Amino acid sequence: MTTLKRIVEYSETRWGRVFDLSIQLLIIASLVTFSIETLPDLDADTRTWLSAFETVTVVIFTVEYLLRLAVADHKLRFVFSVFGIIDLVSILPFYLSSGVDLRSVRAVRMLRLFRVLKLARYSRAIRRVHRALLIAREELILFVCVTLLLLYLAAVGIYYFENEAQPKQFASVFHSLWWAVATLTTVGYGDVYPVTVGGRIFTFFVLMIGLGVVSIPAGLIASAFAKAREIEG
Amino acid sequence: MTTLKRIVEYSETRWGRVFDLSIQLLIIASLVTFSIETLPDLDADTRTWLSAFETVTVVIFTVEYLLRLAVADHKLRFVFSVFGIIDLVSILPFYLSSGVDLRSVRAVRMLRLFRVLKLARYSRAIRRVHRALLIAREELILFVCVTLLLLYLAAVGIYYFENEAQPKQFASVFHSLWWAVATLTTVGYGDVYPVTVGGRIFTFFVLMIGLGVVSIPAGLIASAFAKAREIEG
Amino acid sequence: MTTLKRIVEYSETRWGRVFDLSIQLLIIASLVTFSIETLPDLDADTRTWLSAFETVTVVIFTVEYLLRLAVADHKLRFVFSVFGIIDLVSILPFYLSSGVDLRSVRAVRMLRLFRVLKLARYSRAIRRVHRALLIAREELILFVCVTLLLLYLAAVGIYYFENEAQPKQFASVFHSLWWAVATLTTVGYGDVYPVTVGGRIFTFFVLMIGLGVVSIPAGLIASAFAKAREIEG
Amino acid sequence: MTTLKRIVEYSETRWGRVFDLSIQLLIIASLVTFSIETLPDLDADTRTWLSAFETVTVVIFTVEYLLRLAVADHKLRFVFSVFGIIDLVSILPFYLSSGVDLRSVRAVRMLRLFRVLKLARYSRAIRRVHRALLIAREELILFVCVTLLLLYLAAVGIYYFENEAQPKQFASVFHSLWWAVATLTTVGYGDVYPVTVGGRIFTFFVLMIGLGVVSIPAGLIASAFAKAREIEG
Repeated sequence: MTTLKRIVEYSETRWGRVFDLSIQLLIIASLVTFSIETLPDLDADTRTWLSAFETVTVVIFTVEYLLRLAVADHKLRFVFSVFGIIDLVSILPFYLSSGVDLRSVRAVRMLRLFRVLKLARYSRAIRRVHRALLIAREELILFVCVTLLLLYLAAVGIYYFENEAQPKQFASVFHSLWWAVATLTTVGYGDVYPVTVGGRIFTFFVLMIGLGVVSIPAGLIASAFAKAREIEG
Repeated sequence: MTTLKRIVEYSETRWGRVFDLSIQLLIIASLVTFSIETLPDLDADTRTWLSAFETVTVVIFTVEYLLRLAVADHKLRFVFSVFGIIDLVSILPFYLSSGVDLRSVRAVRMLRLFRVLKLARYSRAIRRVHRALLIAREELILFVCVTLLLLYLAAVGIYYFENEAQPKQFASVFHSLWWAVATLTTVGYGDVYPVTVGGRIFTFFVLMIGLGVVSIPAGLIASAFAKAREIEG
Repeated sequence: MTTLKRIVEYSETRWGRVFDLSIQLLIIASLVTFSIETLPDLDADTRTWLSAFETVTVVIFTVEYLLRLAVADHKLRFVFSVFGIIDLVSILPFYLSSGVDLRSVRAVRMLRLFRVLKLARYSRAIRRVHRALLIAREELILFVCVTLLLLYLAAVGIYYFENEAQPKQFASVFHSLWWAVATLTTVGYGDVYPVTVGGRIFTFFVLMIGLGVVSIPAGLIASAFAKAREIEG
Repeated sequence: MTTLKRIVEYSETRWGRVFDLSIQLLIIASLVTFSIETLPDLDADTRTWLSAFETVTVVIFTVEYLLRLAVADHKLRFVFSVFGIIDLVSILPFYLSSGVDLRSVRAVRMLRLFRVLKLARYSRAIRRVHRALLIAREELILFVCVTLLLLYLAAVGIYYFENEAQPKQFASVFHSLWWAVATLTTVGYGDVYPVTVGGRIFTFFVLMIGLGVVSIPAGLIASAFAKAREIEG
C-alpha cells in the first residue's frame, strides 16, 4: 500500500513521475477530443471513435479517483478538498444520463492540470506571486473599483453623446457598457464606435484617463514583486 | 444626538456599518435602475415601478442628507464640502421640474460611492497612490504634453498622406486626430485606417515612437510606487 | 537693452512670464487655425478671417525672431541653434510664394512649444528621462532590432500562409508587413487578418512571442528610471 | 592566414569592420529583394535583374562561408555551430533545384544578422537580458501555462454563449480559440466578437481577469531586470 501511495501522491519516485505525466497527458488529450467534438461537420465514424475515447478516459479517471481515495489518510478530507471535488466533477457527468447537456462540464478537467503546481519549483513561484498580490492587495481592490466606476461613467457619457446618432448601437447604458469595455481594454473590435464630434472628444478624454488608470495596476504589481523578492532574500 | 452622529458619520460601530452599507447598496441599486430606464423598449408597468423606486430612493437620500447636516459640527462647511455638494446634486434634479432633461445628473450618485474610501485600510492605499503620483508628477506632466504633441503631429502627417486617397475619412486635421487617438491608444476600431503606402509607413514610425512614449509613464509610475513604499518603510 | 533681454530670454520676471505665455498661446492658436483651414467646407468669410489671422501671427513671430536675434549675445550661434532654426522655419514659408504647397511646414510651429521645457522644474524631469534612456540604451537598441526582425519574420510567415487564400490582402511581403505592424502593436484595425487555420495558429505564436518582446522594453525603462532616481538621491 | 582570420572573425580591425558591415548590408539588401520578388505585378525586366542580384548574393555568401570554414580552428565545430548551420541553410536552397519551392528558406538569412550581437557592447546587454529571464523563469513558465489555460477556458465559455447566435463565427471550440487569442491580446480585429448579452458579460469577466494575468509578466520582467542590474553592480 505504501508503494502505491508513493506512486499516486508523490512525483519524486520514477513510477510516480510516470503516473503523473500519463494522467496529465490524458487530461490534455481529453480536452483536445472534447474540442474536436464541437466541430460542426463530423462524420459518424469520428463521432464513434471520440465517444469510445471518452469512455476509456472516464474509466481511467474513475480508477485514478478511487486510487487517490484509497491511499488518502483522511478519506473525507480528500473528497471535500479542492482537487477531490474537481476530480469528481470531471467524471460525474458521464454517469448521469439526465436530460441536461452536461458535456460542457468536461472543461472542468482543465483544472486538474493544476496538480502540476505541486512540484517544488513551481510552489516557490506561486508563493512569490501570492506574496506580491498580498502586498498590493489594497491598491488592487481600489483600482478594480475605480475601473468599474470609470466603465460606468464612460458608458453613461457616451450614451448621451451617441444615443441620438446611433440609436441601435448605443440603445441603452447597457449597450454603451459593451462599448466601454471594448474601448478601455483597447480591444476595439470595431462593432461599436462613436461617430459624433462630442462622442469622439469624450472618448479621447476617457482613454487618456482610463489608460492611465489601467497602467497603474501593472506598476503596482511590478513594485510588489520587487518587494516580494527582497523579502525572500 | 451623539449616538445618531456615531451611526451617520462613523462606520466603526455595528449600526454605523449597517447604515453605511445600506446607503451604498441603495446607491448601486439606484444606478442600476437608472441604466434600466435608458432601455428603449420598456413597457408601462416597468416604467411605473422604476419611477416609484426612484421616488423612494430620493426620499431616503434626502433624509440622509438632512441627517448628515444635523449631526455636522460645522453646518456650512458640510454644505460646501465635496461630499456635501455631491449629495445635494444627487437629489436636487428630482425636485426641479424644469424643461431641461436632468436625468443624466443622476449618474453623479456614483461619486457618492467614494465615501467607502474613508475606511482606514483604503486611506492607506490612497495615500500611497497620492505619494507615487507626487513623486512622478513632473515627468507625468511632461509625458502628457509630449503625447498631446505627438497626437497632433501624427494627425497632421496622416492628413497629408491619406487626405487625397480617402477624402471622407481623413477630411481634415480634426478627422485625422480621431484616427491618431484610436491608433496610438492601440484601440484600433477599424473605422479609419491608412490605405496608401506612404500613410502606412508613416503609421509604422508613429507607432514605434508612440508606443515607446506610452510605455514610459507605466515605468514612471512603477518606479514611483517602489519609492513610495520605501518611504513608508 | 538688458531689460528687453530679460523679458525675451528669461521667464523669471513678471513681464518675461507674460511674454512667454503670450507667445505660447499664440502658437497654440496658430496650430488650431491651421487645423481649421484643412476643414473641407469652409465659406469664403472664414477663409478670409483665417488668412488675416495667419498674417498677424507671422508678423508677431517675425518681430519675436528679430527681438531674440537682437538680444542674443552670439548672433550666429542663435541662428544655427535648434530653436533658432525652428523659429525661422515657422515663418519662412509665408514669405516664399513658390508653387509648392508649404502650408504643412506650419506644423513645425508645434516644436516651438518645447521652449517651455526650459523651465527649471521640467529640466529636472528631462534630465531624469535622459539618464534613464542612457542606462537602458543598449538593451533598447537590442530590442528595437529584435522587434524589426520579428516584424519581418511575421510578415514572411503570414505571406506563405495567407497569400493563396487572400491574394489581395496578402499580395506580397510588403502587404504582410502592414498586417504585422497592426497586429504586433495590438492596434488590430481589422482591415487585414488571417483566415486560414495555419495563418491563425501562426498568428497565435507570433503574438505570444511578440507581446513578450514588446513588454520587455517597458520593464527595461521602469528599472532604468528606478536607477536614475537612485543616482539622483 | 592570420590576417585573413582577423578580418573574417574579428571586427576590431579596420578591414574586419568593413568586411562585417558589407556582409550585413548585403544580407539586408538580399531580404529586401526577396520581399520585392513576392510583389504580384512585376515585369520581366525586374525579375531578370532580381534573379541576377540573387545569384551574385549567393556567390558572395558561398565565398564567405568557405572563408569562415578555412580560417576556423575547428572545421567540424564551425559546420555544426548555430551560425555555421544558418550560413549553410542561407545558400543551400539556391544549389538544390528540387521541385519544392525553397525560396521561403531565404528568410533564414535574417538570422545571419544576429552576428552583430557578437559586438562587445551588445553582449553585455544580452547577458543582462539572459540573467533577468533566468531570475523570472519559473514565474514566466507559470504565467505562460495560466495564459494557455485561460485562453482555452475563454474559448469553451464563449462557445457555449455564442454558438447558437453565431453558428458560423463560433462554429467550434477551435473557432472560439481564435476569438480568445484576438481578444486577450487586445488586438481585436473585429472579425469575430460576441453579440449575445451573456457572451458580452462573459467577455467582460475574461478581460478583467485576462488583462490582469497579462500585465503580471511585464511586472515580473521589470523587477527581474532591476535585480539583474543590481547583481552586476
